[in-house]
Amino acid sequence: MKAYDPEQLLAQAKQSNRVALAKLLSIVERGGPPARELARLTWGRGESAYLVGITGSPGAGKSTLTDRLISQVRAKSREVAVIAIDPTSPFSGGAILGDRVRMQEHATDSGVFIRSMATRGHLGGLALAVPDATRVLSAVGFPYVFIETVGVGQVEVEVVGAADTIVVVLTPGWGDAIQANKAGLMEVADLFVINKADREGARETRRDLELMLEMSRFEGWVPPIVETVATEGKGIEEAFEAIESHRQYLERSGVGQKKREARILEELTRIVRAEVYRKVDQLISDPSFEARKAEMMRGEIDPYSLASDLLRLEGD
Amino acid sequence: MKAYDPEQLLAQAKQSNRVALAKLLSIVERGGPPARELARLTWGRGESAYLVGITGSPGAGKSTLTDRLISQVRAKSREVAVIAIDPTSPFSGGAILGDRVRMQEHATDSGVFIRSMATRGHLGGLALAVPDATRVLSAVGFPYVFIETVGVGQVEVEVVGAADTIVVVLTPGWGDAIQANKAGLMEVADLFVINKADREGARETRRDLELMLEMSRFEGWVPPIVETVATEGKGIEEAFEAIESHRQYLERSGVGQKKREARILEELTRIVRAEVYRKVDQLISDPSFEARKAEMMRGEIDPYSLASDLLRLEGD
Repeated sequence: MKAYDPEQLLAQAKQSNRVALAKLLSIVERGGPPARELARLTWGRGESAYLVGITGSPGAGKSTLTDRLISQVRAKSREVAVIAIDPTSPFSGGAILGDRVRMQEHATDSGVFIRSMATRGHLGGLALAVPDATRVLSAVGFPYVFIETVGVGQVEVEVVGAADTIVVVLTPGWGDAIQANKAGLMEVADLFVINKADREGARETRRDLELMLEMSRFEGWVPPIVETVATEGKGIEEAFEAIESHRQYLERSGVGQKKREARILEELTRIVRAEVYRKVDQLISDPSFEARKAEMMRGEIDPYSLASDLLRLEGD
Repeated sequence: MKAYDPEQLLAQAKQSNRVALAKLLSIVERGGPPARELARLTWGRGESAYLVGITGSPGAGKSTLTDRLISQVRAKSREVAVIAIDPTSPFSGGAILGDRVRMQEHATDSGVFIRSMATRGHLGGLALAVPDATRVLSAVGFPYVFIETVGVGQVEVEVVGAADTIVVVLTPGWGDAIQANKAGLMEVADLFVINKADREGARETRRDLELMLEMSRFEGWVPPIVETVATEGKGIEEAFEAIESHRQYLERSGVGQKKREARILEELTRIVRAEVYRKVDQLISDPSFEARKAEMMRGEIDPYSLASDLLRLEGD
């Protein structure tokens, strides 16, 4: 008897069993064969949830904004799931917890499902675990999934890159727009939100953004800039409407379908690479390889030549 | 006739020909067969330069600090090379240029060689290009190489991870210590420098650091904290002495040798992975694979199963 049978849990989760859903997401996090079975079960099954990625520098108020956007979805009587991502070291667990607690005003609303995600054993890390998780949430019937990152690094950009609409949240001043640009967020943003827009420097931040947008070239869709004060609920409707406009643009233009296909290919590439990583690590740590490693350490063979030898061997 | 013969250029560079050296580093950046030939030529040849990694958040004054540390090395009549790393988008070129210009007070000193590095074609990116570059600089005879990063992301952490002594530069206030922790710098730091220590908040930053250090466990070497005001040259001697102390610790304890060996293995792993990446990308973009991809897009096969098929094929 399997204690955690993905198929059975999935059937239960479809009946709005949130405990079963939480268990499914733990399976995704842990990775391994059960996660793969789950991926097979949820692949290409029915309508996909609309994915909204929310990223930006720490302290930009992403959680509060997400919180308010949840209310927008709920006002339309639609259900929504939130995946909160923090790939940084265990030290920062406190921050996430604090953020999550703020969102607990939706805790008693059965139409809202909130989950923090970290990588545990998932092959390929969060960049693969998150798409797997969103497919579980799609299969269960959520029409919206929000993917919120805590920080703004390479992993976060990769993770939100899997969303249909990517919201980049900035705050006035302190070169936030420039930091976002450095982090590669300008290229992926579909919508900019300047949160805490009642603070000094909001106009300058907007100007910085507009300048950077002018320097970039966009085809079809130019990311709008929306100003919000999430703590007071200001500008939230506009932000949600901008997300919906982008969605309509993606559907109307066919760009959405193309982007989804590109993402699937990207995911396939990541999976294959992750598999290969595992194989290579096995190979390199194999005892039969010790003598060659010692040669390399003594400077008798360089790592490029040894890598070639290793791959030739593997190909045999 | 080869316009850029690595062997010939290397011989010239050893004769203090800086133009030849610059060409060699361009070969490293461009990657491909000439870079591999160069890696073979410089592997395990003679004494290795002592590598000092300097990282920290943008605006922490890393360039000024590096500049002052250069003077410390020069005061001992030793030569030094600096590699400045900026893996972010081409937009940020301006910042690097500005930083480099500041270091130009050493421009006329033939004992100092400064070079900005970006990835162009190098397989495996900066994480592989930088060790290759440091070996060129070692082979040419530099006793010290400083590796300075502009930002502080995953790539930067990987790159400075190749150094013998890793200096993490922070500034007072604004949660700099917490940011450094998030970026994974606490685990890699051998020395903390609180620069701009004449500013308000220096004591708090030191306290934050000390607290975080207490929460971590160190064996043998506990990273010291040095306060500097680089623009005024304050604390620089102490910082350099701390680097030298760490060096002595590494040599005395044998930890240095172990770390170097671990790095070489890490590099081998990266090289093998990068090679395999290239192969996998070829495989996935091969026209013969189109039909399977279409199946996946239609939801008939999930990417995990397809990846398995692909790798089985590759093994044949």
